Amino acid sequence: MKTRVGIIGATGYTGVELLRLLLHHPEVEVTALTSQKYAGLPIDHVFPSVMKYLRLQCEELNADQISKKTDFIFTAVPHKTAMETVPAFLQRGKRIVDLSADFRFQDPAVYERWYQKHTAPELLKEAVYGLPELHREKIREARVVGNPGCYPTGALIGLLPLIEKGMISFETIVVDSKSGVSGAGRDVVLDSLFCEVNEGVKAYKIFEHRHLPEIEQELSRLAQKKISVTFVPHLIPMDRGILTTLYVRLAQKWKTEEIWNIFQDTYEKEPFVRICPKGKLPSTKDVKGSNYCNIGVKVNEGDGRLVIVTAIDNLVKGASGEAVQNMNIMLGYPETMGLDVGPLWP
Amino acid sequence: MKTRVGIIGATGYTGVELLRLLLHHPEVEVTALTSQKYAGLPIDHVFPSVMKYLRLQCEELNADQISKKTDFIFTAVPHKTAMETVPAFLQRGKRIVDLSADFRFQDPAVYERWYQKHTAPELLKEAVYGLPELHREKIREARVVGNPGCYPTGALIGLLPLIEKGMISFETIVVDSKSGVSGAGRDVVLDSLFCEVNEGVKAYKIFEHRHLPEIEQELSRLAQKKISVTFVPHLIPMDRGILTTLYVRLAQKWKTEEIWNIFQDTYEKEPFVRICPKGKLPSTKDVKGSNYCNIGVKVNEGDGRLVIVTAIDNLVKGASGEAVQNMNIMLGYPETMGLDVGPLWP
Amino acid sequence: MKTRVGIIGATGYTGVELLRLLLHHPEVEVTALTSQKYAGLPIDHVFPSVMKYLRLQCEELNADQISKKTDFIFTAVPHKTAMETVPAFLQRGKRIVDLSADFRFQDPAVYERWYQKHTAPELLKEAVYGLPELHREKIREARVVGNPGCYPTGALIGLLPLIEKGMISFETIVVDSKSGVSGAGRDVVLDSLFCEVNEGVKAYKIFEHRHLPEIEQELSRLAQKKISVTFVPHLIPMDRGILTTLYVRLAQKWKTEEIWNIFQDTYEKEPFVRICPKGKLPSTKDVKGSNYCNIGVKVNEGDGRLVIVTAIDNLVKGASGEAVQNMNIMLGYPETMGLDVGPLWP
Amino acid sequence: MKTRVGIIGATGYTGVELLRLLLHHPEVEVTALTSQKYAGLPIDHVFPSVMKYLRLQCEELNADQISKKTDFIFTAVPHKTAMETVPAFLQRGKRIVDLSADFRFQDPAVYERWYQKHTAPELLKEAVYGLPELHREKIREARVVGNPGCYPTGALIGLLPLIEKGMISFETIVVDSKSGVSGAGRDVVLDSLFCEVNEGVKAYKIFEHRHLPEIEQELSRLAQKKISVTFVPHLIPMDRGILTTLYVRLAQKWKTEEIWNIFQDTYEKEPFVRICPKGKLPSTKDVKGSNYCNIGVKVNEGDGRLVIVTAIDNLVKGASGEAVQNMNIMLGYPETMGLDVGPLWP
Repeated sequence: MKTRVGIIGATGYTGVELLRLLLHHPEVEVTALTSQKYAGLPIDHVFPSVMKYLRLQCEELNADQISKKTDFIFTAVPHKTAMETVPAFLQRGKRIVDLSADFRFQDPAVYERWYQKHTAPELLKEAVYGLPELHREKIREARVVGNPGCYPTGALIGLLPLIEKGMISFETIVVDSKSGVSGAGRDVVLDSLFCEVNEGVKAYKIFEHRHLPEIEQELSRLAQKKISVTFVPHLIPMDRGILTTLYVRLAQKWKTEEIWNIFQDTYEKEPFVRICPKGKLPSTKDVKGSNYCNIGVKVNEGDGRLVIVTAIDNLVKGASGEAVQNMNIMLGYPETMGLDVGPLWP
Repeated sequence: MKTRVGIIGATGYTGVELLRLLLHHPEVEVTALTSQKYAGLPIDHVFPSVMKYLRLQCEELNADQISKKTDFIFTAVPHKTAMETVPAFLQRGKRIVDLSADFRFQDPAVYERWYQKHTAPELLKEAVYGLPELHREKIREARVVGNPGCYPTGALIGLLPLIEKGMISFETIVVDSKSGVSGAGRDVVLDSLFCEVNEGVKAYKIFEHRHLPEIEQELSRLAQKKISVTFVPHLIPMDRGILTTLYVRLAQKWKTEEIWNIFQDTYEKEPFVRICPKGKLPSTKDVKGSNYCNIGVKVNEGDGRLVIVTAIDNLVKGASGEAVQNMNIMLGYPETMGLDVGPLWP
Repeated sequence: MKTRVGIIGATGYTGVELLRLLLHHPEVEVTALTSQKYAGLPIDHVFPSVMKYLRLQCEELNADQISKKTDFIFTAVPHKTAMETVPAFLQRGKRIVDLSADFRFQDPAVYERWYQKHTAPELLKEAVYGLPELHREKIREARVVGNPGCYPTGALIGLLPLIEKGMISFETIVVDSKSGVSGAGRDVVLDSLFCEVNEGVKAYKIFEHRHLPEIEQELSRLAQKKISVTFVPHLIPMDRGILTTLYVRLAQKWKTEEIWNIFQDTYEKEPFVRICPKGKLPSTKDVKGSNYCNIGVKVNEGDGRLVIVTAIDNLVKGASGEAVQNMNIMLGYPETMGLDVGPLWP
Repeated sequence: MKTRVGIIGATGYTGVELLRLLLHHPEVEVTALTSQKYAGLPIDHVFPSVMKYLRLQCEELNADQISKKTDFIFTAVPHKTAMETVPAFLQRGKRIVDLSADFRFQDPAVYERWYQKHTAPELLKEAVYGLPELHREKIREARVVGNPGCYPTGALIGLLPLIEKGMISFETIVVDSKSGVSGAGRDVVLDSLFCEVNEGVKAYKIFEHRHLPEIEQELSRLAQKKISVTFVPHLIPMDRGILTTLYVRLAQKWKTEEIWNIFQDTYEKEPFVRICPKGKLPSTKDVKGSNYCNIGVKVNEGDGRLVIVTAIDNLVKGASGEAVQNMNIMLGYPETMGLDVGPLWP
């Protein structure tokens, strides 16, 4: 029997992407969708892209009602709403992947410094940070998984092989990320209008983006030492994709080939991490619509400067695809189930 | 046992799209790829999008070699090359879907007026025009299917319900199509450079586009009467998609609702044609990456002017997806097999 | 002494485009800007593009205050607001170019059928429809010019040479327009978000767009006979530009060359209309940022079908550039003054 | 009498941009255009954007012929061709702004390490690096100006205020640049096709881009000490613009405000450098089509990390606009002449 899945907050960009992936998952049936804005409307009125193959109606969020017809829950609502919603489903015995920031932090104080008061701090102890490449085993047993932010996913996958081996200086890590506009979500704001964004590039929230503490938490945990990074996100005129350029210093003068081998070894068995051939660099275009993270590395041999570049689709590996990957791990399905469609190119 | 499939001409945009769809098809295994330009190279060097899940090498076109390891052939090479290639595979007992124009025309004279001398005219008698919505039964038995052009697919699906019922004037049909740039193929030409195309729109080949005789052939066959249409294609700054706006005159003063019902009835059982709810119009964005054709209709009640709008992804329903649909029909697989992934939105 | 100019509604897309053009006009000084939303803020906080060369502050709309420091007024506010604003400036002796629809219609009944009750219907008698190519002499003396809509500008310039000569059938005119997103204005609405618009094309308001009666008014006036047209606008993923494809039937079987000559003769002395060389078609890219309208023509010789294609920048020739051209005519400046910058290419 | 100007290599993107700017310059007349590819064709056949206001014909490069009808020369040809061309015009008494890399380097050895053998090394002694913000006085007298690369312009304007004051560590400078596609020029290559570039971002030539030694030359000269930087360029799906994000370490714990003041003071009198208001960051959209460089700064107060962001239009301040600015300086015209058109927004 298929797992019945509910999506809380189905009408944002991560919501519709969850739909795309789950409707295609052979062991899952989507049985409930909620939307504050579109409650009462058939989902194909909101997203004509699902016409003819999904006839579900958006409903109000009612934990009792939803719980009766679902076995597993994705919460794709904004932070704050998420931590007010997740406990109700936990109490009704559901396991949950939450796509907001509310269950990503171990230390409530960190969350509260960057967001607001946490209303379910006790859950932070058991919630697992849902980056399978780091925490697969814990995810397997988790009741609540805090699905990583889009920027942290690309940054962490690029940094973790060398951090855990202690091969780079922890002092001067620079994370320069370039994101497509869907990362800003579906909120109707001036800054997301086509004509404000198209044919332009800009940086934003320098030193102040809320994904910074998330990156630092996971790097510090891995290094068992407090690590600070310089993180600057940029907005790029395209729908999907995050390219992250990582500037680090090697502890010794390793060559490109040696670094490449370490990445290759680290990720050989990871189903969704791909190391570009030596001399090649990743483009977000090569992962669009897929759950892959592509990686390229290049050392300035002689002085130990290293640049690592990672490419993901922010809505897939950076959000909904990773969430489905986490669900697969939690439910014991093959990790690639429902995620086996290749990138859309071009 | 899976059907072993070869793609002749795998490194153009329709080639890589065939790959994306076929690698995901449960009853098919891609066992041979040819490329004049990249022979000898692994396919993932040409398209990093397929890294880690396809390790095939591009090879030269050798019908003997390819035939030994394949059961079914897609030819995704330019016209002329196609008609020189297809017979060799037919002789070796393969069935073929050809994505070029070489097997779309019944009358060699028409082909030769718009293209060049046909080198396999005898095959035109048996080749079937591969629009499943029109010729499904013949496709089932065909040895060679001439997969429709991208523009004709969008135009014909929009016109056929009213043409076959004789409900519109055949004199004044206007077909105004807007296509994404991938329709121009992967040839390295000035006009396809990013900076020449981006942030601009233009018409091209007015009255002279080679898809015109294809549209006219199928409409005339359906009407059992020669039909001429005015066809103007336009180039739009986006990767994928064709929107076709059809301007016709109704033979009587039917209402929007009556026309809508006819479309609904005609296409209810078609797996890949979707009629937009009354009052809604299609966008190419709602079909991107999928094999769907979305349709909207609007009558100027009072004087019988009717506008029909169709939206397809030119690389899927307008090329490789339709080709896979044809293969499914030819081989007796469920028609939607391998094509069940929803549109990528946004 | 320079003409002191005020812009009422300076913070929309047509407002900032007026600024760009007027700041560059040697006989004009911009001395007042109003904005409901940004009153009190320096204009370069709203549009950093004007930093360092314009230090004006946005103010509330107060006709007395504004009139004291201006000689000439552009109203770039939405319809309804415009007709409530224009009379106050007229009473204070200002001449006005209004960029809304409120002064484009001769017949209040037509305006009221498509918009709402007109609050200054008596002004419609004297207001001049500001298409210089049609009404230059009247514009010269006008107190109020109703600046044409963006779609009508492109459609009318393409149709008027043959309409006034009675060379085409008036029965079957089809106007298929493709517009960049800035045409939708700067309103913060879901449909204008980058991710909703990018990588997609759609038709909208078929038979129902408010620019239709404007096109029909001017064509009918020119033909001295009621003309109806079929008009369908489309939205294209780019910032600026409108391409209009016009489908008409010639009254006789003229050749492309003959039609081309008529266009050439009609527009030879028009400073902003350019006929493409025979065999070439216009792209919006070739007029971006300029006040030009480029035109191409193509006859299907033998049956008299004719396609005319026009390209404009919707914010320049389709709005603010045409408005400056009108001001130049009204004030006796050379018509190209301030408008002599070539298109930005690419 | 106007200065008669020739453009050698007028049919690339920097060539047509020179045309746009120079045709609008009141003291200049363009009297000769050369093009290897389009010799014999009127320039408006190559670029319909200049139809009706420029009727010059492209000609072959013949230094004698060109010299007779020109007073001043821009060379907008590829490197190597430039150094073979410039001496001929010098000998004929012309002054030249060269837009290639051939006259940017003081030390022939550096040029030869990154490019090829220099055929006019003696000219490198007198050629001036054409960044007005650094070398205005020398430019005034120069016979040959080596117009800076697009990336170096954005990087140097961002770094020079703090470098010359010795306020930052010279050890850890990271230059992460994001460029529109026109930076790659008009060469017809696969990597510049619309569908290869659109909807994707990638890094390229990490540690190996030829603009690196140019940046290092100027920084080292200014610091009077050898400076190495880490430079990574990226390709962004838009026509124009370069955003450069600079990561540096302050020598002391200055605050954002102090750094902002230094930028403000340094550039107050520069006509084309604009410092964003405190708390604001630049977008390339705000400089498109103009010669401006916009700058934003942000300090992580407490630890002295500083991020500087600069935005230019690569074809204007990064190429042709800067070239015109240099010409103005050389010929004693006001520095902003012909460059006084504001950015095109949106």
